Amino acid sequence: MLLGAIEAGGTKFVCGIGDENGNIIERTSFPTTTPDEVLEQVVKFFRDKDIKALGIGSFGPIDLDRTSETFGYITSTPKLQWANINLVGAIKKEFPIPIGFDTDVNAAALGEMKWGAAKGLNSCIYMTIGTGIGVGAISEGHLVHGLIHPEMGHMLVRRHPEDSFAGNCPYHKDCLEGMASGPAIEKRWGKKGQELEKNEKVWDLEAYYIAQGIANLILVLSPKKIIIGGGVAKQKQLFPLIHQNVQALLNGYVRHEVVLENIADYIVPPGLGDNAGLCGAIGLAYEAFLENNQK
Amino acid sequence: MLLGAIEAGGTKFVCGIGDENGNIIERTSFPTTTPDEVLEQVVKFFRDKDIKALGIGSFGPIDLDRTSETFGYITSTPKLQWANINLVGAIKKEFPIPIGFDTDVNAAALGEMKWGAAKGLNSCIYMTIGTGIGVGAISEGHLVHGLIHPEMGHMLVRRHPEDSFAGNCPYHKDCLEGMASGPAIEKRWGKKGQELEKNEKVWDLEAYYIAQGIANLILVLSPKKIIIGGGVAKQKQLFPLIHQNVQALLNGYVRHEVVLENIADYIVPPGLGDNAGLCGAIGLAYEAFLENNQK
Ligand SMILES: Nc1ncnc2c1ncn2[C@@H]1O[C@H](COP(=O)(O)OP(=O)(O)O)[C@@H](O)[C@H]1O
Ligand SMILES: Nc1ncnc2c1ncn2[C@@H]1O[C@H](COP(=O)(O)OP(=O)(O)O)[C@@H](O)[C@H]1O
Ligand SMILES: [Zn+2]
Ligand SMILES: [Zn+2]
Repeated sequence: MLLGAIEAGGTKFVCGIGDENGNIIERTSFPTTTPDEVLEQVVKFFRDKDIKALGIGSFGPIDLDRTSETFGYITSTPKLQWANINLVGAIKKEFPIPIGFDTDVNAAALGEMKWGAAKGLNSCIYMTIGTGIGVGAISEGHLVHGLIHPEMGHMLVRRHPEDSFAGNCPYHKDCLEGMASGPAIEKRWGKKGQELEKNEKVWDLEAYYIAQGIANLILVLSPKKIIIGGGVAKQKQLFPLIHQNVQALLNGYVRHEVVLENIADYIVPPGLGDNAGLCGAIGLAYEAFLENNQK
Repeated sequence: MLLGAIEAGGTKFVCGIGDENGNIIERTSFPTTTPDEVLEQVVKFFRDKDIKALGIGSFGPIDLDRTSETFGYITSTPKLQWANINLVGAIKKEFPIPIGFDTDVNAAALGEMKWGAAKGLNSCIYMTIGTGIGVGAISEGHLVHGLIHPEMGHMLVRRHPEDSFAGNCPYHKDCLEGMASGPAIEKRWGKKGQELEKNEKVWDLEAYYIAQGIANLILVLSPKKIIIGGGVAKQKQLFPLIHQNVQALLNGYVRHEVVLENIADYIVPPGLGDNAGLCGAIGLAYEAFLENNQK
């Protein structure tokens, strides 16, 4: 069975065709220009592809409340051209098939649980550290939503005593995203993360903040696997530093051997590499297909 | 149908008989002395009561992993007489009926969702501020567990710049519980919370810490209702202070009217008052009963 997948990012859209086993057969991507231009390309890509369902993992904020009049919309995004755009509606008009819709990071968490680093488990979190910090979560087998979708990248962190960077979150200044996203690194150090690989101080500080977010997430959700992806997490030296900091912060309180002894297997890079989001959108498509067939 | 309920606390055990509508018909309580003494009283209370199932909300840490050899045990508690005690097993031996088992705070969250302040919703959190700080959570209709049960009371908080109290958590010193539990208040101010009602500084500082925990929980779980109980939360002047601090911390980022405009209806005292835990244990009993009947 063929399934369609869209990873709708603030920088680029990735579209793919795959199957219910998470195999991706074909893919394409294009920059996130105007909604009209992008939607035209999306429709062109999926036309005549005989997909049975479609999954969309989207940048946000988005409205996931099925009882809401603006379900399926991108809502109050700072990318103004995209604010209040009926993404699901526009696609459904062209393709009247079951459509799964969730945040980009929830999709990635789903992909990693179905086919990646969290395979066989019923909970995980997926954190991306890139232009922003986003986290998707699965708890007790279910993608986590509530009042709205979670916004875990904006958790409070404690400032490092030697860090004088003000933080660049427009809402909170020095929340996790404000202190540790790619642009925060660039603003603090005057260079992009990819050019700072050799500067140990950068990664010590980065791990100091990321570990606080992760420690809180362990205390709140108790996930069975923690996956960290996104551009900044390409710096693989970050992982052991995050492991050490998380253990130091929890200080033996969470008495489980994966935290105490096997943390290198607990907090890991994506099993699906850069495909987590797209595979996850395939997973959303498949879930929408199954749900539709149950009706 | 009669259901049994046990609220197993570190200070006292409360036992009750109720029905599937959350009505409590009979109750008793006794101090948490030795496991032998307590279990004898528990058994005596429920004997010949014709209960169809039993629910236990327990202090912890406890083992909730049904595949584990120590499922149903109280595990590494600092109350040493109670460490590694097979609570569920001991009760099951006397009463071979379905037994529901969860943390005291998850039970309270369930009680509040079924019959209290979160009635009709599919998510909520229940925070107790007492001898410790514990939080139970329901997300997407399910009680939240994972690797182990969450320990949200130990989240990291930012120290108030004028607060020199070191914090009294034996693991983390100045985590949320270390800064804001009943004993932390007593240690910082030299008096118990109940004697400090008129001291505004006490409650400003308390709200400063509690609001950080709540703001993080909103960002992570996006619960549809937040309920705060426990001894310290009897200080009702705390609620408006928590509301103000949560709004200030989130700073408009979580765009939902219950946060922006109706926060006094969003963060509330228990609808069931001091019965949240016991009613929740009734709820656990009923779920165990239903689950058993499905088999
Ligand atoms: N190899 C790298 N090492 C460190 N930082 C990187 C690397 N690659 C990308 N980044 C940083 O990550 C951010 C982009 O994040 P990315 O995950 O690639 O895209 P997006 O979040 O927009 O989807 C930029 O701030 C960039 O500097
Ligand atoms: N009315 C009150 N105002 C402020 N603090 C209180 C009040 N009642 C109890 N406390 C504090 O709460 C703690 C006990 O918590 P409680 O919820 O009553 O029991 P437990 O957590 O042991 O189940 C003590 O530190 C006590 O000082
Ligand atoms: Zn922020
Ligand atoms: Zn602690």
